Amino acid sequence: MKKRVVLALGGNALQKNGEVTAEAQKAVANEVGEMIAELAGKYEIIIAHGNGPQVGNILIHEETGATEAAPAMPLETAVAMSQGQIGYWLTQAINNAFLKRGRNIKVATVVSQVVVDKADNAFKNPTKPIGQFYSKEEALKLAREKGWVVKEDAGRGWRRVVASPKPVDIVEKKAILDLISDGTIVIAAGGGGIPVYRTKVTKRLKGVDAVIDKDFAAEKLAELVKADIFVSVTAVPNVYINYGLPEQKKLDNVSVDEITALKKYGYFKAGSMLPKVEAAAAFAKKGGTGIITDIENLKEALEGKAGTIIS
Amino acid sequence: MKKRVVLALGGNALQKNGEVTAEAQKAVANEVGEMIAELAGKYEIIIAHGNGPQVGNILIHEETGATEAAPAMPLETAVAMSQGQIGYWLTQAINNAFLKRGRNIKVATVVSQVVVDKADNAFKNPTKPIGQFYSKEEALKLAREKGWVVKEDAGRGWRRVVASPKPVDIVEKKAILDLISDGTIVIAAGGGGIPVYRTKVTKRLKGVDAVIDKDFAAEKLAELVKADIFVSVTAVPNVYINYGLPEQKKLDNVSVDEITALKKYGYFKAGSMLPKVEAAAAFAKKGGTGIITDIENLKEALEGKAGTIIS
Repeated sequence: MKKRVVLALGGNALQKNGEVTAEAQKAVANEVGEMIAELAGKYEIIIAHGNGPQVGNILIHEETGATEAAPAMPLETAVAMSQGQIGYWLTQAINNAFLKRGRNIKVATVVSQVVVDKADNAFKNPTKPIGQFYSKEEALKLAREKGWVVKEDAGRGWRRVVASPKPVDIVEKKAILDLISDGTIVIAAGGGGIPVYRTKVTKRLKGVDAVIDKDFAAEKLAELVKADIFVSVTAVPNVYINYGLPEQKKLDNVSVDEITALKKYGYFKAGSMLPKVEAAAAFAKKGGTGIITDIENLKEALEGKAGTIIS
Repeated sequence: MKKRVVLALGGNALQKNGEVTAEAQKAVANEVGEMIAELAGKYEIIIAHGNGPQVGNILIHEETGATEAAPAMPLETAVAMSQGQIGYWLTQAINNAFLKRGRNIKVATVVSQVVVDKADNAFKNPTKPIGQFYSKEEALKLAREKGWVVKEDAGRGWRRVVASPKPVDIVEKKAILDLISDGTIVIAAGGGGIPVYRTKVTKRLKGVDAVIDKDFAAEKLAELVKADIFVSVTAVPNVYINYGLPEQKKLDNVSVDEITALKKYGYFKAGSMLPKVEAAAAFAKKGGTGIITDIENLKEALEGKAGTIIS
């Protein structure tokens, strides 16, 4: 039996050296595709990915290019658009990597709604900045007109901020599982998923402008598809403590208790390594293996020979 | 055994009364969702949809909002974005319609690449206008810079034109079939599909800026999934000849030979009823039933009691 592996790829990772054109991002996707094709002989692969810079650009275009006849799409729909965009690039890249190897493996991107709880505390204190910068006047006007929450962003101007609630469920989980069971490499929960909640009385699904952390969404996906291994694929081969200091120490094999203790003492930065550590530790706590590493060390890490492995 | 039905929904149909906001389009998607939920007891439903106005707006935003740091995405990627957007709206609408009925049916949107032939004559003479209008100077500058073909559009300004090649294959067909077989309502080949071709030597997939007619793509999908019925869902209950004239005649049950003869004598307009008639007739010629009707008459038409039915 092949081990089932969920990979959480960073949206930033597709924009190597700051190159942001479609062509440049597709070239990076092709490198990812090669790696996936290498791994697919030995593992069942499911891919979740971030969308930070991509959905940021979609929002900038939607907002600055909006007219009455062509109004801007809201954030939740923009996330869906980024799933189509990045999902297409990754699907094609993996298709081509298999083709090169003469292998006929199915690949499919499933547009994914991720359910959040409207009572999540995150909605009371939105902190995640999204989209373009505005002057104070513009920002306050948009806040009045559209009900946005806006905040001053580190001296760079004003931006909209949205909630970053925790993922509770993935609407398309059964379809995703069907595809995995049929031998398909699935790309799902892109950008942390399209944020939706269930209304109180009828339990209908409804989109909400929010940003779900892609590592938490990918970890939820790993749980729901009963994966053996969850990997947060990032820019560094390992998690470090005291990074860049003389006392710098690389973490290789750690227990959930150890990493929880390090977390408690503030060793991991919010918005950077913290969500990856939390997601990998949460997955390990439920009995799986949680890994944090980069794309170069991914193969070795899956064999237990590289990366930070939490179990 | 339930009959397998592929519906081709117009992208225009989501913008009722010219309302173009996300909220307005979601409201129309909800009406479609209700209809799908009604039909799902009796039929296996697969949905393909157009994206004309939606991808048009995405392109306007991408182009007018582009900066060096946030460059415009090309048409083929914009089609992928529109698949995420519309697929999400339809998926959620159908989810909610089933929920209302207390039924637990899976729904999934598969991001779909549709293969075209780079030797298709359409590439020699691009005719499909897309995106915004430009002045002659701007248009010719873009043609030089980006290799676009531009044309004067009926006195309204200059626009980019792209090829509208015929669909040859759908890359994700097996994943789509797996999902259908597992009882999932699938949304696929949105906007006619992301146009891709196979390179000459290595047969790699590569995106190409083109627009595939959604009725032809949906008909190809119907063939590939071995559907029993293909329906082009449009704005009118039937196909007419001499529409609006005293000799106006409604077509109900017609043979492939009859409709082919009418087509030969120019009764159907290109860019309007012609592709729907051609797609439905092509499907009927291969042994299935091809229907053209509107959403209100869809249920009756599937029972043979309404619409234009080609067999």
